[in-house]
Amino acid sequence: MKIAVIGAGSSYTPELISGLMCVAKELDLDQVWFHDVDERRLHIMHSFCERLIKGCFALFKTSDFVQAVRRADYVIFQFRPGGLKSRKLDEEIPLKYGLIGQETTGVGGFAAALRAFGVIENYVDLIDKNSEALIINFTNPSGHITEFVLNYLGFERFIGLCNVPINVLKHISKLFSCNVEDIFVKYYGLNHLSFIEKVWFKNKDVTNELFNKVSQQSEPELPAWLISSLGLFVNPYLRYYLSTQTVLNKLMKEGTRAQKVLEIEERLFQHYEKFDSIPEELSLRGGSLYSTAAAMLIRDLALSNNSVHIVNTKNDGSIQNLPSDYVLEIPCLTKSKRVLPVSLGEADQFAVGLIHTIKMYERLTIEAYLKKSKSIAMKALLLHPLGPRSHNVRELLEEILEANREYVRLS
Amino acid sequence: MKIAVIGAGSSYTPELISGLMCVAKELDLDQVWFHDVDERRLHIMHSFCERLIKGCFALFKTSDFVQAVRRADYVIFQFRPGGLKSRKLDEEIPLKYGLIGQETTGVGGFAAALRAFGVIENYVDLIDKNSEALIINFTNPSGHITEFVLNYLGFERFIGLCNVPINVLKHISKLFSCNVEDIFVKYYGLNHLSFIEKVWFKNKDVTNELFNKVSQQSEPELPAWLISSLGLFVNPYLRYYLSTQTVLNKLMKEGTRAQKVLEIEERLFQHYEKFDSIPEELSLRGGSLYSTAAAMLIRDLALSNNSVHIVNTKNDGSIQNLPSDYVLEIPCLTKSKRVLPVSLGEADQFAVGLIHTIKMYERLTIEAYLKKSKSIAMKALLLHPLGPRSHNVRELLEEILEANREYVRLS
Amino acid sequence: MKIAVIGAGSSYTPELISGLMCVAKELDLDQVWFHDVDERRLHIMHSFCERLIKGCFALFKTSDFVQAVRRADYVIFQFRPGGLKSRKLDEEIPLKYGLIGQETTGVGGFAAALRAFGVIENYVDLIDKNSEALIINFTNPSGHITEFVLNYLGFERFIGLCNVPINVLKHISKLFSCNVEDIFVKYYGLNHLSFIEKVWFKNKDVTNELFNKVSQQSEPELPAWLISSLGLFVNPYLRYYLSTQTVLNKLMKEGTRAQKVLEIEERLFQHYEKFDSIPEELSLRGGSLYSTAAAMLIRDLALSNNSVHIVNTKNDGSIQNLPSDYVLEIPCLTKSKRVLPVSLGEADQFAVGLIHTIKMYERLTIEAYLKKSKSIAMKALLLHPLGPRSHNVRELLEEILEANREYVRLS
Amino acid sequence: MKIAVIGAGSSYTPELISGLMCVAKELDLDQVWFHDVDERRLHIMHSFCERLIKGCFALFKTSDFVQAVRRADYVIFQFRPGGLKSRKLDEEIPLKYGLIGQETTGVGGFAAALRAFGVIENYVDLIDKNSEALIINFTNPSGHITEFVLNYLGFERFIGLCNVPINVLKHISKLFSCNVEDIFVKYYGLNHLSFIEKVWFKNKDVTNELFNKVSQQSEPELPAWLISSLGLFVNPYLRYYLSTQTVLNKLMKEGTRAQKVLEIEERLFQHYEKFDSIPEELSLRGGSLYSTAAAMLIRDLALSNNSVHIVNTKNDGSIQNLPSDYVLEIPCLTKSKRVLPVSLGEADQFAVGLIHTIKMYERLTIEAYLKKSKSIAMKALLLHPLGPRSHNVRELLEEILEANREYVRLS
Repeated sequence: MKIAVIGAGSSYTPELISGLMCVAKELDLDQVWFHDVDERRLHIMHSFCERLIKGCFALFKTSDFVQAVRRADYVIFQFRPGGLKSRKLDEEIPLKYGLIGQETTGVGGFAAALRAFGVIENYVDLIDKNSEALIINFTNPSGHITEFVLNYLGFERFIGLCNVPINVLKHISKLFSCNVEDIFVKYYGLNHLSFIEKVWFKNKDVTNELFNKVSQQSEPELPAWLISSLGLFVNPYLRYYLSTQTVLNKLMKEGTRAQKVLEIEERLFQHYEKFDSIPEELSLRGGSLYSTAAAMLIRDLALSNNSVHIVNTKNDGSIQNLPSDYVLEIPCLTKSKRVLPVSLGEADQFAVGLIHTIKMYERLTIEAYLKKSKSIAMKALLLHPLGPRSHNVRELLEEILEANREYVRLS
Repeated sequence: MKIAVIGAGSSYTPELISGLMCVAKELDLDQVWFHDVDERRLHIMHSFCERLIKGCFALFKTSDFVQAVRRADYVIFQFRPGGLKSRKLDEEIPLKYGLIGQETTGVGGFAAALRAFGVIENYVDLIDKNSEALIINFTNPSGHITEFVLNYLGFERFIGLCNVPINVLKHISKLFSCNVEDIFVKYYGLNHLSFIEKVWFKNKDVTNELFNKVSQQSEPELPAWLISSLGLFVNPYLRYYLSTQTVLNKLMKEGTRAQKVLEIEERLFQHYEKFDSIPEELSLRGGSLYSTAAAMLIRDLALSNNSVHIVNTKNDGSIQNLPSDYVLEIPCLTKSKRVLPVSLGEADQFAVGLIHTIKMYERLTIEAYLKKSKSIAMKALLLHPLGPRSHNVRELLEEILEANREYVRLS
Repeated sequence: MKIAVIGAGSSYTPELISGLMCVAKELDLDQVWFHDVDERRLHIMHSFCERLIKGCFALFKTSDFVQAVRRADYVIFQFRPGGLKSRKLDEEIPLKYGLIGQETTGVGGFAAALRAFGVIENYVDLIDKNSEALIINFTNPSGHITEFVLNYLGFERFIGLCNVPINVLKHISKLFSCNVEDIFVKYYGLNHLSFIEKVWFKNKDVTNELFNKVSQQSEPELPAWLISSLGLFVNPYLRYYLSTQTVLNKLMKEGTRAQKVLEIEERLFQHYEKFDSIPEELSLRGGSLYSTAAAMLIRDLALSNNSVHIVNTKNDGSIQNLPSDYVLEIPCLTKSKRVLPVSLGEADQFAVGLIHTIKMYERLTIEAYLKKSKSIAMKALLLHPLGPRSHNVRELLEEILEANREYVRLS
Repeated sequence: MKIAVIGAGSSYTPELISGLMCVAKELDLDQVWFHDVDERRLHIMHSFCERLIKGCFALFKTSDFVQAVRRADYVIFQFRPGGLKSRKLDEEIPLKYGLIGQETTGVGGFAAALRAFGVIENYVDLIDKNSEALIINFTNPSGHITEFVLNYLGFERFIGLCNVPINVLKHISKLFSCNVEDIFVKYYGLNHLSFIEKVWFKNKDVTNELFNKVSQQSEPELPAWLISSLGLFVNPYLRYYLSTQTVLNKLMKEGTRAQKVLEIEERLFQHYEKFDSIPEELSLRGGSLYSTAAAMLIRDLALSNNSVHIVNTKNDGSIQNLPSDYVLEIPCLTKSKRVLPVSLGEADQFAVGLIHTIKMYERLTIEAYLKKSKSIAMKALLLHPLGPRSHNVRELLEEILEANREYVRLS
């Protein structure tokens, strides 16, 4: 089996490689190819990982995309178009307009998506022509990109992945002192806009027990009384929607995440150049369990195990009161090299309201890209609950387009 | 034919009566009954209208609701629970929290709806027991109330009406120097959250022509560039969503509409007590063409005319990408004493996003009322794009409930 | 306005021309073009109609299809691919296999559809290239052809028409001694597979009254007890499904309809050659009120009248428990040169069962044509309740293909 | 854990008990209760099974239904209302009318369903009141009964099971020399009206390979050319629909299955009275692998295993082009003591046509029972492709009702 890692210069890569080492034997994994547009990071990372894997499988690096993906069985997307420099602007520009600046949510996610679409379109096309690979996507905004690939590019071998679901399950299983496999959740929504309505520990409905356990936590941005009023365990990113002002004040005061990440990354790469083991500091980077998510998913797909993974794919009837073509983040059975959504019944009304709005925002953003249209881009921004309104939408859009002019042009 | 007018003490009533006079003969209308909980206004209005109609039909007043509606053929709801005093609070309270205060939209509409549901529930039940009447509803928020009656009370003989559609049609027909009947529009949405996507003058698609005509208008809250970017003619109430800050600043500066209306009403009732004809000042009151809407609708229903009216009723497949049970404001054929929605295809994505959110907000508000639940009420407010967020939702909800404690209690 | 009549050599044409004469002035109709592949019949019919219309509009004949349709406003399809000779075989071949032989229903309709698709495809393409005309289709099987054009050719300006609905309405209005316009029906289904569930005379539900009136009728193939058990007024063609053996016995005994029609046609054309007025014998031909249906529909479309016509078009939500893309025969509002379906709620379960089966049969037949596949053709026949079963499906299909080899080839 | 077996006097019971013995330890199964209305068979079977299980769990018998099900965890329905005597009539009566007589399909299944509904209604109610048990249903017609329980009784803890799916999977896995778990099928439809469209062996699509393997088989009623034309592997019961005349001729000649079964049963019970081991002759009885299906399902439900079982439950979006409330036979994940359908995409058009018709027939039959209506029963029969037509529907229905007057009365 051949796996290609696109954006392999990411500081996360060592964790991913550790994950792949665990399943390499079961999967008969014999080659892994690293690709990145940043040759320096690619080189450092390849050297570091070579030392890490100790010959567990062959590890190649290339700056030739086609060489990386040719005849691959799985391709992992984890690149970041524009790098952390662009992310920093995604977070900073909205703040100037009194709006949340966040990597994947709201105006920042809008800019990141516009940067990503063109690259994704190109990469997916090359993979389609050079392999029968299944793509596992971590590139952000992961759900938005999956919507683009499945519904607009019409390419089906694409699964959007995120580390939030596995972390949530891990967290719950700790509260019940059990294995992750013993927990089943009625989990649905969009990536970074997801909800848990019901929780089972083996055959027992433990939803209320969990509300009680959670009520002891108290976070200013998602306080226990709020979770309890909603009757829903919400994705941590819901804080941007539910506690907009609180979060905004905090962002204004503390500065953006990108700046901190830039500093962490600097130190991580210094480490990767010199040492042979994964640094503890990687845990600060924020991608907790991301390697587990990817490695387990590839294993269960490749072996056609009857496993359940929460991934981004088309709804296909899983949530009855949402259209079947919406890309959602939902539990799926891994079977016959595909992810098959499992029927969960209806979604809660609060969730339904938000999901539709953000899905329509996603589609308008995609259509703005496809039709190169500023008008549609404005429509997308005006629809977003965290977006600008008529008094500043034009100015904000111009500033975003100017900052990302290498990636996207609208008129 | 017997028609009952509930809330007949409204300053609009003379206009309605004028409308009914025009169709009285065709409809064989022989009695109209006035009901109001405000005996003084009921008396003034009855006396004034008696002088107005000159025996065109028999005109009765009563404070006994059952007597008013017994064996009626049509009942018109135009009452305002809590009167202008309550409306004033609906407009003022949100402003204290930095939120739009508006009679039907956002937080103000939320309070008005909570006040209305109990009264509506009682009245609809009495009408069901005492007549086979069809109810024409103007009581605000008109669409929200229609959602409540059709989907939660399960009472079917109920049509939600508003004067916006007929005014819009009138406005368009003026621009094309033609009759209202010559214009057909792809019009859809919720009451006060509606959109026009296409316009035909007879068989000709004049949508682009209309965009050009409209682009000359320039209103700060719904400027031409905004309408043109959306590619949709929006309901005037969309200003609250699209230009929130601009409108909020204006409201803060100019004060609420309720105060002005109170003053106008005062003068109108002084006039009604003394004079015999409809005062010019009534046009300032804001219900333009409301009588035409009601009288024409009753006429076309009663005569089973093949007419098209834009009213609030269940979608029933008219807009394909919205659920068929949503109450929408859409063009319907008047046939066999019912309004039958006409198929219009799909709604625009921007509209779809907003409609779903507000419909879910409507349903959560209704369920908060039915289950007497503060938690669900909070969910409704947190979902509304014009609502509060976690830092002030609880305080705001308490203040609204305190102000309306005679009408609704949640716990 | 220009109207083109394709298949103008039909013996029905004089009736159509009479209909057009009635509305010519209102429509500003100045030219009618006759086209037929049978030059003799085209000539006779053109000469006869010239004498009939007395200069009411200009009447042309041509064997050049493009000349006929170029810049036409409306095109009427009433041609019969293969003529009566083919129809005779459609009726006779199935009988050899113990199956119903009928022009539009069952195996006969299957053969007729396969003959028609290629011609339709060609004609629609030429019309699309040479005009903005709306096509009114009478060519049989009319609903099946409309399914083909709207859902497979993706051409939208196409309305399937039949004279059954107008005859049914006429019949009901006679029973209630009223005008056709005073009757409204909950009518739905496929062409020649339609059902009436509810009937209103003005605003009064007279369904039960009508069951009583109808119960006096007694026809061996659709007896009153049967209609009453179903609780549905069924299209006369339902006799083939409900009383298969009875009808089959009758067909075996009496011979096919095609033979009789051939004889009537012979006499009609002798008349058309010699005389100036429409012969009484035309009424025996079977297309009663077909001209009224066409002329009224064109008038109401052209004038954008608020009229209701029962035609074949996409469901579009009109019948909630049938998919919105099914072409159905349903009441539509004529507006902006289109037919807009009117919401009717849910269809009866008996009707739903039959409609789905026949719609799937229709689509399989269309796909057999498009993919030139005998296998899919067999699937279509095996699914049809009036079709063959495994012991004779192959032999029957071969015989049909042999008989129609000039029109369709499958392999 | 307590399991109750209703209809334990069935000759199949020893096989079921063997199955339960295999999983008893894993499930902590400590008591099994036998119930039957036939005391003699109950006694024989209880004694025989007591000898068989050798104390693996406690085995009780009772003629008190409530005692049997009280606090049970699982209840297995395998009773046959009216016994083989009634089944014999189900098979014989239709033949007199020239129609297929079959236990579960067509007119015979109609009679069996009408007999079952009342008993099921009573039993389900008692189970609901006396336990939180999940019911596993084998009583025929199994899918029809599941439709009744889930959609009309509104009782959710009910799963319809049949041994066809597991036999089909076993058959396929033998052809590929692999384990059943390595095969995944796109399987859907109604019980005894199901279709397989795609087959995977691990991650490989082996559908075409399987068509090739199957094409060597040649059965007169489902010949290879027929399967290949359909492009679908069909449930063996499809022979009644596809080869109606062939099967009918065979039934006429060979006599009904019931007669043979009566003779086999006689011999089986003689054996059960005397011996201690399961007789080889049981394999002739026809319920192959039924015990495996039940025991494995209970095990995977109880342990919340991630297993896939093909059972009868609500569609819930699994098959996108069928309504979500239809009870279908589809692959489901066993999780949290429920069966969760897995998304499979769209069903084939041929299948869709038949499924809708038979589902509508099922619902009409259920409504005939609920409303005690002969008219609706006639509608059901007239809709069924294997049912009577107008010339004999009334006579046939009367004879069926007369034969089953102890179980159902319609008027």
